Amino acid sequence: MTLPDSQDLAVHVRTIAQALADAHQTLATAECSIAGALGAALTDVPGASAWYVGGVAPYSARAKEALLGLSPDAFARHGAVSPESALLMAQVLRAKLGADWTLAETGLTGPRGTHRSAKELGTVYFALLGPGGLVVEHELRTGLDDRAANKRAFLAAAVALLAGNISKSVEISVL
Amino acid sequence: MTLPDSQDLAVHVRTIAQALADAHQTLATAECSIAGALGAALTDVPGASAWYVGGVAPYSARAKEALLGLSPDAFARHGAVSPESALLMAQVLRAKLGADWTLAETGLTGPRGTHRSAKELGTVYFALLGPGGLVVEHELRTGLDDRAANKRAFLAAAVALLAGNISKSVEISVL
Repeated sequence: MTLPDSQDLAVHVRTIAQALADAHQTLATAECSIAGALGAALTDVPGASAWYVGGVAPYSARAKEALLGLSPDAFARHGAVSPESALLMAQVLRAKLGADWTLAETGLTGPRGTHRSAKELGTVYFALLGPGGLVVEHELRTGLDDRAANKRAFLAAAVALLAGNISKSVEISVL
Repeated sequence: MTLPDSQDLAVHVRTIAQALADAHQTLATAECSIAGALGAALTDVPGASAWYVGGVAPYSARAKEALLGLSPDAFARHGAVSPESALLMAQVLRAKLGADWTLAETGLTGPRGTHRSAKELGTVYFALLGPGGLVVEHELRTGLDDRAANKRAFLAAAVALLAGNISKSVEISVL
């Protein structure tokens, strides 16, 4: 796969900021494996407080329970790194923060030996909810056993997903 | 002021990771203005899940209320960007996540015109709680009307504060 560069990232973030500001819509994030990298990137844009509500980085089981009210039982069937869990976290965060758009991310950055999941390293799942409900579920497999590269790839995928879907939705609603 | 470089940042993060792993202690973060940059930096270290519990990025008043249970009334007297509010957020997050160490950050990144606070741009307040309670309150004023530079400086101050205090505490407890 082609790894993203920081210029693409900044372009996507500006697209997201402009689309949300134009539509007077808001965004919230749950970042299980990138742990705040997305919130930090989104708020690089001046005036982000007009549309970025905030987010959580529920890195541990304890945090998933305390911040989202999701006990380990909630993840027992599919595992915390799964499409089902991404969707569940997005739904809970949306109910809490009431943002128009909510993105949840859950993945395995690696390296090998630091986790006990059955999933392949470099796998990440996203669930994006928009004003009308679920917009898209997305899966990425980098195939890399490289924590830094996986974190960059997960972040790049997150902003690309937001930029594509939010700007498309805003265009449609303007037509 | 001297602006931090990314190498200092990585050194501090490794110091934090080693000290927490050695002491079998945990850390949680609340990032009001850097919105996840600290969680993202801390979890660059492989194996961070052993000691990083997670965090919140309560960027808006809505998020402060929904994630920390702190209504605008809680900030009415001192403002959300104040030493008192940093301490309050650290205390609430500590009660929620039960980490040995909890750092809360609240600041004004700017640029001018994007906020309505009476505080000077480039001002940030930290409150760090440790195993025995309040460890340190810290204030930084960069004097800069430069959002990117302020975000970098706030992040650098956060990791320096953690590295200094956690490694010192671990040394003392080993003596």
